[in-house]
Amino acid sequence: MKEKKSAKSSKDHAPSNAKRPKILVCNDDGIDAEGLDALVRSMKKIGDVTVVAPLTHQSGMGHAMTLGKPLRINKWHKNKKFFGYAVNGTPVDCVKAAMTQILKHQKPDLMVSGINYGTNTAINILYSGTVAAAVEASLFGVPSIAFSLTTYENADFEYAAKFARKLALETLKRGLPAETLLTVNIPNLPEKDIKGVVITAQGKSKWEEEMVERSDTYGQPYYWIRGVMKLNDSSLDADEYAVRHGYVSVTPICYDLTNYRFMETLRQWNLKK
Amino acid sequence: MKEKKSAKSSKDHAPSNAKRPKILVCNDDGIDAEGLDALVRSMKKIGDVTVVAPLTHQSGMGHAMTLGKPLRINKWHKNKKFFGYAVNGTPVDCVKAAMTQILKHQKPDLMVSGINYGTNTAINILYSGTVAAAVEASLFGVPSIAFSLTTYENADFEYAAKFARKLALETLKRGLPAETLLTVNIPNLPEKDIKGVVITAQGKSKWEEEMVERSDTYGQPYYWIRGVMKLNDSSLDADEYAVRHGYVSVTPICYDLTNYRFMETLRQWNLKK
Repeated sequence: MKEKKSAKSSKDHAPSNAKRPKILVCNDDGIDAEGLDALVRSMKKIGDVTVVAPLTHQSGMGHAMTLGKPLRINKWHKNKKFFGYAVNGTPVDCVKAAMTQILKHQKPDLMVSGINYGTNTAINILYSGTVAAAVEASLFGVPSIAFSLTTYENADFEYAAKFARKLALETLKRGLPAETLLTVNIPNLPEKDIKGVVITAQGKSKWEEEMVERSDTYGQPYYWIRGVMKLNDSSLDADEYAVRHGYVSVTPICYDLTNYRFMETLRQWNLKK
Repeated sequence: MKEKKSAKSSKDHAPSNAKRPKILVCNDDGIDAEGLDALVRSMKKIGDVTVVAPLTHQSGMGHAMTLGKPLRINKWHKNKKFFGYAVNGTPVDCVKAAMTQILKHQKPDLMVSGINYGTNTAINILYSGTVAAAVEASLFGVPSIAFSLTTYENADFEYAAKFARKLALETLKRGLPAETLLTVNIPNLPEKDIKGVVITAQGKSKWEEEMVERSDTYGQPYYWIRGVMKLNDSSLDADEYAVRHGYVSVTPICYDLTNYRFMETLRQWNLKK
């Protein structure tokens, strides 16, 4: 692709004198998802994109990886044109396939994940395959960002894809600290109705869950997990609160889970061999 | 069960004048695993145990939960006696089934997970179903501990089960801070060879991974993920280093993943709407 000389002045494009960044794109909704398409189109405006995504829907898979069976990596076409690689595994498997096989000799400058159908705020960060893919890329030393839209229906990815591009450029320019990645939640609103961008913490909102019992045709019970996300925060410092109030929420998360403060207390416990 | 009057003097048993604690036991190796048996036998000495475990092996499932299909919860017998409940899902599903269905009206005082075949140190904390089950129980407000043994073969669970009981009693007595649980790794050694107990942080050890390509009988490629855990720490303050050197490692982990320190820096980025 020929680079425009004027691109340097545009904040929406990578500087023309820079090498185009290599961007890995993944998701958890599967390679055929509309949100992935929107993110790919947006990233192609600023870099060279490689797509590696799950063959099938992988929501709720968290940081699961495939251990007991082998994986297939197949080229995937859309509208008769090569689109990317489909892996018959989890989002984490996709990143492993990208980093150890497909892009083995051309480490990406950035990894983006999404755009997910549905928020990945608060406790959902633990269940999210979208976020897990970004964590996994970060483990390989690649600055990573997970993007989620607040809706499952009537998704409008336009502003989300535009903001993703802006944040991608900032991240490429500034980098991220060790063991840290960004997870971003964006209201399903047109740009004019977005109230602003806030930096948030992982909030305390949780699912209130139940198991709904049904009977099969033999009279045997089976159970569906069902839940309602309960808002447990009351300020724009928390991710779920922020998106519910029309703000884009950007949360830096870290995968060193140690509770360092509690270590000293634990040393006082009676735990001699 | 009749309680011994002398039990109060024993550090290995719950005080006789206390109500016996209710203990939920889960794992990720499946309801038929030897390590689960060892943990259940040990916990029965101090409390009333309920077992809810996956029907099949779930290693590497991380915090995955089942969204797209219903679950079965079946009573499981060992040696013709009722042993617990088998769930055809992930470790996280098992805890949800326990907390929202099986033990809906009798919240456990403690949850223990394991004893896992193989360490869950450093980066493995992210992939571990054993740890994820404990995280999930902690989300329901139950103090939780994950136990792992350093071996996949010739496992000797005797000392591990004994230490699990000691730590369970301490945890019941002292409690844990909000959003915090313990993950414990124990060398596969007889008690006399255990060097001691150390409180550790999640270490920086990582897998060096590759994908091994094979061909099926039609000549089509498939891939196995393979890796070697590379020790990136050099002191007893890190989990993987500690267990490799003969110590029991106790790590407090927290599921608020926010990198609070980086939030202020992020606020300086150019991220206006």
